Amino acid sequence: MHKVVERGTKSLINSRIKRKSFLNKIVHNVDDLIPHFQNGMYIGWSGFAGTSYPKVVPIALADHVEKNNLQGKLKMNLFVGASTGPETEDRWAMLDMIDKRYPHQNGHHIRNGINQGRIRFSDEHLAIFANELIGGYYTMDKPHGSKRTLDVAIIEATEITEDGCIVPGASVEDEVSNAIANHIVGFFKNEIEQGRLPKNLLPLQSGIGSIANAVVGGLSRGPFDNISVWTEVVQDTFLDFFDNGKLKFASATSLRFSPAGFNRLFNNWETYQNKLVLRNQSISNSAELVRRLGVIAMNTPVEFDIYGHVNSTCTFGSKMLNGLGGSGEFLRNSKLSIVHAPSTRPTKSDPHGISSVIPFASHIDHPEHDIDILVTEQGLADIRGLAPYERAKVIIEKCAHPIYKPILMEYLETSHSLGIKKGMGHEPHQLDKAFKFYTNLFEKGTMRIDKW
Amino acid sequence: MHKVVERGTKSLINSRIKRKSFLNKIVHNVDDLIPHFQNGMYIGWSGFAGTSYPKVVPIALADHVEKNNLQGKLKMNLFVGASTGPETEDRWAMLDMIDKRYPHQNGHHIRNGINQGRIRFSDEHLAIFANELIGGYYTMDKPHGSKRTLDVAIIEATEITEDGCIVPGASVEDEVSNAIANHIVGFFKNEIEQGRLPKNLLPLQSGIGSIANAVVGGLSRGPFDNISVWTEVVQDTFLDFFDNGKLKFASATSLRFSPAGFNRLFNNWETYQNKLVLRNQSISNSAELVRRLGVIAMNTPVEFDIYGHVNSTCTFGSKMLNGLGGSGEFLRNSKLSIVHAPSTRPTKSDPHGISSVIPFASHIDHPEHDIDILVTEQGLADIRGLAPYERAKVIIEKCAHPIYKPILMEYLETSHSLGIKKGMGHEPHQLDKAFKFYTNLFEKGTMRIDKW
Repeated sequence: MHKVVERGTKSLINSRIKRKSFLNKIVHNVDDLIPHFQNGMYIGWSGFAGTSYPKVVPIALADHVEKNNLQGKLKMNLFVGASTGPETEDRWAMLDMIDKRYPHQNGHHIRNGINQGRIRFSDEHLAIFANELIGGYYTMDKPHGSKRTLDVAIIEATEITEDGCIVPGASVEDEVSNAIANHIVGFFKNEIEQGRLPKNLLPLQSGIGSIANAVVGGLSRGPFDNISVWTEVVQDTFLDFFDNGKLKFASATSLRFSPAGFNRLFNNWETYQNKLVLRNQSISNSAELVRRLGVIAMNTPVEFDIYGHVNSTCTFGSKMLNGLGGSGEFLRNSKLSIVHAPSTRPTKSDPHGISSVIPFASHIDHPEHDIDILVTEQGLADIRGLAPYERAKVIIEKCAHPIYKPILMEYLETSHSLGIKKGMGHEPHQLDKAFKFYTNLFEKGTMRIDKW
Repeated sequence: MHKVVERGTKSLINSRIKRKSFLNKIVHNVDDLIPHFQNGMYIGWSGFAGTSYPKVVPIALADHVEKNNLQGKLKMNLFVGASTGPETEDRWAMLDMIDKRYPHQNGHHIRNGINQGRIRFSDEHLAIFANELIGGYYTMDKPHGSKRTLDVAIIEATEITEDGCIVPGASVEDEVSNAIANHIVGFFKNEIEQGRLPKNLLPLQSGIGSIANAVVGGLSRGPFDNISVWTEVVQDTFLDFFDNGKLKFASATSLRFSPAGFNRLFNNWETYQNKLVLRNQSISNSAELVRRLGVIAMNTPVEFDIYGHVNSTCTFGSKMLNGLGGSGEFLRNSKLSIVHAPSTRPTKSDPHGISSVIPFASHIDHPEHDIDILVTEQGLADIRGLAPYERAKVIIEKCAHPIYKPILMEYLETSHSLGIKKGMGHEPHQLDKAFKFYTNLFEKGTMRIDKW
């Protein structure tokens, strides 16, 4: 076991490493560790969503590759619970140092590497990743005779206890987002009136990104008290929620604050310290706990189709964005599963060129069976208890942008009457036309088709 | 509360109804109950997979509708945990007595009603059905002023205890199936050798149908001892498994034996009674328990695509078969998720007209993230730890029928090189061609396309 100590005086080191027999394993010059890393190795890092990941060793390895022109010659298989920072993972990708990367990723170069076929990426449910790693599923193809586990694990830690345990580190708003938040607040109010939700709601999960952040901001201004949060990542607007006294407690696996957010946290540490707990991702994202707690899950997808199938990962059916993350465990196992997205996104030639509501999702991560509520700035579709044809009418009516409503409704009605005629009317599609939004987009830069 | 007692003498009734205050609620003539049922009501039945469902009252209602020409005039919303017998549910469908049917179904007439748009059906994960029913999700659209719960529940019971609790009743092999079973047995042997499975495997779940039945038969002849089973439905071949001493214990929610199977069970009751327990479907199919136990899940889908997305419910993307059942909870939460199907199915004009391995699944119930192993009579694809492009090569190579292998491989390689060129190469598709197997099938009666 080796450890590198950075930016530390000797007394600080001694105070942090309480198991004294480890002190003689300290390496003071990071370059001494380089020879331990070889081409083809299976490497694990600590970290989640851009926090608590190792910096010194990965950066030293990247410098080593760059200085010695070893691009493509020191490639490793990299396993980290979720995304890390761009100066490590994404720089490794830029320097062609990554062969496989599981189960999540983030960064321009790594994304390109995946979509250009240089990096082998498999998108996995985060909650089950550790089990599968320990179970040997990811190291099955290591050469015979070699150790069938990870070769090296690099862990960022703040302390090592006397018994040798490692103490790890701590793992933007607009009109569309506000409209989405308002629809959700209105929906929750009505659910409380109808007796289907308690006055303090249920533990909230909220995804990553500007829409999720704005939705939490909107909820923090809503008429709800004593809220609890059971989520993966806590973003800036959760601090507003704490500060106005409405958020009682939050459990997460990682903090993803802006620099200003971190300043707020540490400047008011006394206030926050008993209201926030970080747990590992097998717990925070656990199917069992999400279901037992009756979590309300809220996530932003790429697109969803008229029957409620949801794409969270691949644009144009083919191009990986970041990955599934916790969305699968949360959406399937929650008491209420909510997805929210803008009704359209722009292309170069059309400010509404891409509709988030489409006839057939170009990739499906969450099937219809897992989704209760779909929201865009246009409105909120409550599809609980609805059969597919009813569901489609509500989704188009409530969520689609007015430009796309008549086009989608025509697809639905034609599919429905053809389907009924053929005795295939349960969830009717015209498979020869199902992806026409996409073929039109590729040809003409917009999903606004002239005719079916 | 009303009860109908059928085929019982007075002393038998008295011995079965131990809460004596209920005895004066017995109705001896089933026709006296007819007026309690009105058009538009929300009705619950007991039962699962063709067992433990009520017969006398539903049949009496069907007779009433038939005799008085009330077809379409006494329509009810029917909620039963899973499928029932054809003389009740399917006869109701034939007599146009069903408006909505959740969350599962089985039968020629009900399937037609759904696919012709007369019956509103919503396919749900069975494990979560009871929660959602109790949570009011299925009764939200009842008229204001009416009770927002089920109007009547009809329960088949064998006993009522002193404290008023209800004791419910007990809820083909061929060459292709045998080849599938042999591939799975070989795979399990290797997993044991590699140390990834214990010698007695892990608790087995097996789906419904002839392939699942044959796979269990194959396993019962395999070299495995002290097996346990955690499943939804126990079929005939489980009895062989008990009888050869290899199956130690089975937990299920329902028995689905042939008449001969039931005879075997009851004739050897002493042998079986301590080896078999039936639990309710919220337990048998529970995500939490399936994950905790590390179940090995084995289910038969309609089709799967080259990247491992699985369709369990809708043929041609549109036409409902039976429904999702427990497959979602088992496949996602199991330690090993296995799907098995014949590599092709016949059409009228081509004995291999439909390939089970297709470029893009025409409906997706289980996304790629949930699937480990895919099996046809051709071979077994182990896709654990593989990125999408690698996965596709293995699935085509191992599972596709030789007729379809070159066609699928050409689709993959063209999609891959185009995708890489465009920077969309993670899980590359050609959306303009993705459903061409289907358009060809509709036009020419076979998926064997001439060219892409």
